[in-house]
Amino acid sequence: MGLMEEIDDRKQVIEKRMEEIFAKKNQHPLWEYMAYYPESGGKKLRPFLAMISTGSFGELESKAVPYGIALELVHNFTLVHDDIMDQDEMRRGRPTLHRKIGDPNAINAGDGLFALSFNILSQTEVEGEKVRTLLEELSSSILKIAEGQEEDLRFEKTFQIEEEDFIEMIEKKTAYLFRAATRGGTIIADRNKKEIEKMGEYARKMGIAFQIQDDYLDLVGDEDKIGKDVGSDISEGKRTLMVIKALSELPDRKKDRLIEILEGENNAKDEIKEAINLMKDTGSIEYSKSLAKQYAEEAKSELDIIPKSKYRIILEDIVDFVISREK
Amino acid sequence: MGLMEEIDDRKQVIEKRMEEIFAKKNQHPLWEYMAYYPESGGKKLRPFLAMISTGSFGELESKAVPYGIALELVHNFTLVHDDIMDQDEMRRGRPTLHRKIGDPNAINAGDGLFALSFNILSQTEVEGEKVRTLLEELSSSILKIAEGQEEDLRFEKTFQIEEEDFIEMIEKKTAYLFRAATRGGTIIADRNKKEIEKMGEYARKMGIAFQIQDDYLDLVGDEDKIGKDVGSDISEGKRTLMVIKALSELPDRKKDRLIEILEGENNAKDEIKEAINLMKDTGSIEYSKSLAKQYAEEAKSELDIIPKSKYRIILEDIVDFVISREK
Repeated sequence: MGLMEEIDDRKQVIEKRMEEIFAKKNQHPLWEYMAYYPESGGKKLRPFLAMISTGSFGELESKAVPYGIALELVHNFTLVHDDIMDQDEMRRGRPTLHRKIGDPNAINAGDGLFALSFNILSQTEVEGEKVRTLLEELSSSILKIAEGQEEDLRFEKTFQIEEEDFIEMIEKKTAYLFRAATRGGTIIADRNKKEIEKMGEYARKMGIAFQIQDDYLDLVGDEDKIGKDVGSDISEGKRTLMVIKALSELPDRKKDRLIEILEGENNAKDEIKEAINLMKDTGSIEYSKSLAKQYAEEAKSELDIIPKSKYRIILEDIVDFVISREK
Repeated sequence: MGLMEEIDDRKQVIEKRMEEIFAKKNQHPLWEYMAYYPESGGKKLRPFLAMISTGSFGELESKAVPYGIALELVHNFTLVHDDIMDQDEMRRGRPTLHRKIGDPNAINAGDGLFALSFNILSQTEVEGEKVRTLLEELSSSILKIAEGQEEDLRFEKTFQIEEEDFIEMIEKKTAYLFRAATRGGTIIADRNKKEIEKMGEYARKMGIAFQIQDDYLDLVGDEDKIGKDVGSDISEGKRTLMVIKALSELPDRKKDRLIEILEGENNAKDEIKEAINLMKDTGSIEYSKSLAKQYAEEAKSELDIIPKSKYRIILEDIVDFVISREK
């Protein structure tokens, strides 16, 4: 079975359970709002990582299902709130939730998903002390996500961002929930501290690679595959590793021009192309790609503690997928 | 010791622990934002209820401190998000958080408080299975709060609200967190299901009385004591039990006039007085007061399971305080 089949396998389990959870939605409008993002697809990568981590250590994957759903609900609550903060219009081909029901109801629906996440966590079939550990794990990860979000909002107001600070921000915003997935899955499998640490490092590094690749695809991807215009991040003035690196390398005049395009509204296509070329000249796009590869390699090297098995292959394949994916 | 001294006693314990928690605020702007409401005072009534419930059954009150802080943080996260949803300008005599730092950062700071709440919960010094029970308790209460908030937002768009639906809404929005406080405190004291139920009912009924009294004070309170203009709820068009009751009793012409005032912007003082008089004529203000008293009496009657002790007296005193308070 290829990686996509493995992912799809678990996705079906997760979606079935989530449908049962949201069956309540006919009884209260809040639940209908809460279900809007979770029902709109997605690969369910975080539950997948949790289940595979549990399975890697010889424990039943199904034990990680409630925790995996908790992660997925957290992911969805951050999407709902992020979309409000950014006033984004579209998500997964549909209007964003706040555009549909207004900011107040969307803020509240995000809070509902947040609460539901911890409610499902309490149903994990592990002994009580492990519930405590998972609770600590998930809640402290969300605190990191919120720190990362604050940093992201702050970075939107400046172009003076150190590469190190940028990596820390995407680590918190993206990598920490992947990290919580593998750590939680390993905790559920009752493994020791060193194993939990290494599985966490695996996911953290993979998560950083994931985000860098995401930004990379926006610039060099195939429009049909990524489902949006190439360079949409430039139109939106998004700070990416490529932008930060380019700004640190470009001579003043070109630097000012790149900032001008990033700050401009409704950029023309040739402006976006100009920006991409400015960035290409500094090698920042290739630099970004190679850094993603480096994080990916380091992620894989953490897996030496896992016995050779189909699970280890899956975990390695995820990393390869993350940096080779085209959408 | 009077009730106020008892409250103040626990408040000091809670505030000290919360200061330690927020000592992190110098290290990250998110934590500074998160600390803004928790540091601005308040009676810490929810932690108090949790501690007194634990103490009522002969267990050390201090065992309920982390859970009490979790409740207080949840309360504060709901205030942050509610203020954004309502676009309120002032809270406890200071600008609301979103007015200070903008909606995006305030949404995120609320999320941070939410996550911190569950993080502190994980530190409760009870056995693991109890942590699971407390987690279930707190998370399902927040889901109820979110349901109540959705109902509240919906009611803002209509004047056709049944009394029963209104009571359900304030029960969810206000009473459920009080209920989580006493139930959690009783769980921490390792008591049985019936005791947990009764302590929960005590707080639920008291919470409903609390909210009715809150709305009542806005109309008949002393401006110096309540710290706002009498009738500010009328200016804001707030749906209260008194409004709903009056609308159901008034003849059409007077009903339309009351709605007109409630919907009007920047009401003159004599319009507010007119609205209050319209409501007085129907007896809705006295009805509201007597319903609060009835809930209060019913709340007290749940306490028969508690041994006669200083704790039982405190629990009775809280109820009396709730319906006799002038601010």
